[in-house]
Amino acid sequence: MALIVQKFGGSSVADVEKVRRVAGIIADTYCEGNDVVVVLSAQGKTTDELIAKALQYNPNPSKREMDVLLSTGEQQSVALCAMMLQSMGLPAVSLTGWQVRFVTNSNYSNATITAVGCERIRKELDARRIVLVTGFQGVNKYDDITTLGRGGSDTSAVAIAAAMHADLCQIYTDVDGVYTADPNEVKGAKKLEEITFDEMLELASMGAKVLHNRSVEMAKRYNVNLEVLSSYQRLPGTKVREVKKLEQAAVSGVAKDANVARFTLVNIKDEPGVAFKIFRILANQRINVDIIIQSLGHGNTQDITFTVSRADIATARAALEENRLAIGYDHLDVDDHVAKVSIVGAGMLMTSGIAVNMFDALAQKKININMISTSEIKVSVLVNEDDGDRAVQAIHDKFFGD
Amino acid sequence: MALIVQKFGGSSVADVEKVRRVAGIIADTYCEGNDVVVVLSAQGKTTDELIAKALQYNPNPSKREMDVLLSTGEQQSVALCAMMLQSMGLPAVSLTGWQVRFVTNSNYSNATITAVGCERIRKELDARRIVLVTGFQGVNKYDDITTLGRGGSDTSAVAIAAAMHADLCQIYTDVDGVYTADPNEVKGAKKLEEITFDEMLELASMGAKVLHNRSVEMAKRYNVNLEVLSSYQRLPGTKVREVKKLEQAAVSGVAKDANVARFTLVNIKDEPGVAFKIFRILANQRINVDIIIQSLGHGNTQDITFTVSRADIATARAALEENRLAIGYDHLDVDDHVAKVSIVGAGMLMTSGIAVNMFDALAQKKININMISTSEIKVSVLVNEDDGDRAVQAIHDKFFGD
Repeated sequence: MALIVQKFGGSSVADVEKVRRVAGIIADTYCEGNDVVVVLSAQGKTTDELIAKALQYNPNPSKREMDVLLSTGEQQSVALCAMMLQSMGLPAVSLTGWQVRFVTNSNYSNATITAVGCERIRKELDARRIVLVTGFQGVNKYDDITTLGRGGSDTSAVAIAAAMHADLCQIYTDVDGVYTADPNEVKGAKKLEEITFDEMLELASMGAKVLHNRSVEMAKRYNVNLEVLSSYQRLPGTKVREVKKLEQAAVSGVAKDANVARFTLVNIKDEPGVAFKIFRILANQRINVDIIIQSLGHGNTQDITFTVSRADIATARAALEENRLAIGYDHLDVDDHVAKVSIVGAGMLMTSGIAVNMFDALAQKKININMISTSEIKVSVLVNEDDGDRAVQAIHDKFFGD
Repeated sequence: MALIVQKFGGSSVADVEKVRRVAGIIADTYCEGNDVVVVLSAQGKTTDELIAKALQYNPNPSKREMDVLLSTGEQQSVALCAMMLQSMGLPAVSLTGWQVRFVTNSNYSNATITAVGCERIRKELDARRIVLVTGFQGVNKYDDITTLGRGGSDTSAVAIAAAMHADLCQIYTDVDGVYTADPNEVKGAKKLEEITFDEMLELASMGAKVLHNRSVEMAKRYNVNLEVLSSYQRLPGTKVREVKKLEQAAVSGVAKDANVARFTLVNIKDEPGVAFKIFRILANQRINVDIIIQSLGHGNTQDITFTVSRADIATARAALEENRLAIGYDHLDVDDHVAKVSIVGAGMLMTSGIAVNMFDALAQKKININMISTSEIKVSVLVNEDDGDRAVQAIHDKFFGD
């Protein structure tokens, strides 16, 4: 007997057959004696269709009204799934964001959760009902409808699990777990039985699109036991939790991020505060900077190199060129034919030679490294874009090959 | 400067072009300086489509979950219409039943309104916003979503107009007002400039499908000025209100109801309480009885004749036959080839000879009258179904012909 939160995404509830399959999973969990709270997304492409429809009415619709419109998608999902469970003879009740008192701030279309009410959900669970809650949506303090932005249903599920002190929060998706690398691109990629929150965060931020990053951060903060598993196969997934591994693999996974560009400011005057100036300018434009390398000075000048998302290239270039005299650099060099390849692992700190093995794998394939960045649980290298896939495979073979 | 509630039905907001037209009407009303509250139904066939969808998930869906599902239709309507008004540069805000605190009892799918909150609507109007409220739906005291049943959006509009003390409640429909008879069936039918609540109620209950009866009853109780008008033509409609007519037409309209069957219980023992017995039996089966005639006794027996809806024939017959001995009648005669034709008019009481003129019109056409029933503002006759249309035309010609 446990309290289990189960989240199913839009493709898992896209039509009546898929909802029937999902209802089967829910029914099994309930019939084992567990309290079950289910969080659902809108069916299939409903959200996209509603957005397209809205644009017919207003090419630039207000975010408040968009949230009123989009929130109907999840409301339909929970009602239909409740009907399906009832047709199987199970007691089920649907609840919307405002009925649960899923309170957010007023940042329409990308709201932040401030509180989750437990009272109503608890009451329904105590009556032994399966509770179906709309994902993605909430209500602000003015009683206006808000949404959490894309992928927000993962966060809804984790927030409910945290508020209700659930024993487990299961995220059902199209994939059956978290892999050592993208199984569609890397031969020999293996499913992980478990992974820590930090590893999951590093993998997610590097393009492993299994879990919404906000949801993992929240799970880490409130120590929610997460499990990622497939809604199509009745198999164990990957557990995401804060575990002390006794015998652990040093590296959990390899990921590639091709959405990256390298900027170099050449011949900057070597004086205090210059780095602050540069990154303040970029922060003012809301540009996230990833790897940063400050080269050793030659004479009284130096180079500063960093990476940004490709979408930010134009904005970053304009801001830096506008401030060329204020910063005091010679010229700007931008390379968008690069890819970032990273290894992630909580055991990395305690295991010597991990980075060395990574560099060795790349050297053997004659892949040149542009930049290197390390953190407690991650080593990232910047390589030429053309070398990206070979680099991932070579590193994966090195660490996970037989 | 007035407070005007405008209600638009599903066909008036069925697609983007129709919503644009509706938005034009709203914009004009607003730009004349009025406070405008708009009540919308779900677009076009949305409600029917959602019901059909629900039946795929559960052939017998719970009414609570059905209401959760169906209420999304109006929510989409108000959001889209708000977006359209905003695209025209007008300030608009959408509100759902629970945001307005449109409180009902818990009779899911056919709920009764118990209270309508004014606070939120007032606040938005004070900020000079056009307020778009979902019709058809409310919320019960447990914070669960309810719906008012079919045609409930008319009632929503009147309830809001009553609660807000609106100066006028305009019901926009496919027709441009209330006519002296069904203009599709009767030659020479004329649009009425105004009509009283009671006349409207009698006409509505006799099949003039212009306004939902509940909405007229509520308008009468709270003395809400109603106007029925077309969303396709910018023309004055028919005003429904409690007016003292100085020079009034005695008859406001002629209506036919073919959904009627005549029951006769032949040779009932003539003793006290027998009518009570019969109509108690029918009431227990929730069968509404319309015209009732108790014939003069012959010997110590009599006949009792009454009409019911055709849908109730089987239930009524079974209940009466089952209780034949208890009631004590000889045999039962049922005729479902009848039609009820009525004239309605608040001026009828004060004008002698109205009924006589009606009977004269029928006699001239050699139409036989089966039953007659009169009220303060109505005279109804039962005729053979085949004579129904000719009867309506003859009576209409008599009262409204040139």
